[in-house]
Amino acid sequence: MHSNGLFHFSGGSHGKWKVLRMQTVTGASLEMVERLDVIAGPLEGSPPGSRWLLRGIVSNERYITRVERAKLEAIQQCVGRPEATCAALIPIRKNSTWWSLAQDERRTIFEERSHHIEIGSKYLPPVARRLHHSRDLGEPFDFLTWFEYAPTCSQKFEELVSELRKTEEWKFIDREIDIRLIRDDA
Amino acid sequence: MHSNGLFHFSGGSHGKWKVLRMQTVTGASLEMVERLDVIAGPLEGSPPGSRWLLRGIVSNERYITRVERAKLEAIQQCVGRPEATCAALIPIRKNSTWWSLAQDERRTIFEERSHHIEIGSKYLPPVARRLHHSRDLGEPFDFLTWFEYAPTCSQKFEELVSELRKTEEWKFIDREIDIRLIRDDA
Repeated sequence: MHSNGLFHFSGGSHGKWKVLRMQTVTGASLEMVERLDVIAGPLEGSPPGSRWLLRGIVSNERYITRVERAKLEAIQQCVGRPEATCAALIPIRKNSTWWSLAQDERRTIFEERSHHIEIGSKYLPPVARRLHHSRDLGEPFDFLTWFEYAPTCSQKFEELVSELRKTEEWKFIDREIDIRLIRDDA
Repeated sequence: MHSNGLFHFSGGSHGKWKVLRMQTVTGASLEMVERLDVIAGPLEGSPPGSRWLLRGIVSNERYITRVERAKLEAIQQCVGRPEATCAALIPIRKNSTWWSLAQDERRTIFEERSHHIEIGSKYLPPVARRLHHSRDLGEPFDFLTWFEYAPTCSQKFEELVSELRKTEEWKFIDREIDIRLIRDDA
């Protein structure tokens, strides 16, 4: 079943990821919490201590071509590496103008003009990334992107995020929260 | 909220659409029922008399270009026309090979080689169509397509369905049920 790609992100008092900061980049904010729990699979009810709960599903890719994917697959890392003790959860929503565009128009803005994949590729080897789709689940955000990296890559990660926010694609984003985390299993 | 594009299709003893026949085209069958109810929006619990319940959401388009959409918009009809007393609900699922293809590969099969949009365009003026996405909702089918047409267009509709089933795209379909209905408000 495809539903095994489902993930829940619970913000509250529980979870192995400690929140370092939460920045509202665009639009309505999200309540500040102490910890984040990442839960794979379906969920019955709300996790203990949860203040907010975001859902997303790892789905098929929407823009990437075969050639671009082959390049990415050669360099990208998996989440869960022991040295990757830093993480970021960046929920975003795109506006109705974006969603009313046809597929070729969105692809053109996404890659030919904003170079989303190309920018990501420059930083991917040290930064692991997992994209969750939320829009069709009726969630408040359209996408939840999860990043993991080693503390030594923190500066590189800032550059990645900063470069993406300058693109034409980002003009269509009407809500964005940047949540930075550090692993704390204790 | 995007969730207002959500629809439930309940098969059972209730609903204004009377089932004329249910044909299992490919894969596992679905229990034969007498009636179908189409319910817009979120749903708490199961509708009365429901034997199965399928969910799908009207989402952004995944393959169509600006030019193709302009052509479609010029000719397509809305659902709910009084004369359209015939309907079909065709749930389909595509196999893992399809979903592992990159966007450009799926687009090429979908339109350049299978002419899905072009075939649809030939029949659209008398046949109204609404596509619901289900895969990311963890549903048993990937898509639920709803068609409405007048009884005089029944033969045309058979041709549309038959032509699509001969395409390369259809080789990736591993489950398909064809449910034919007639409006019966009594």
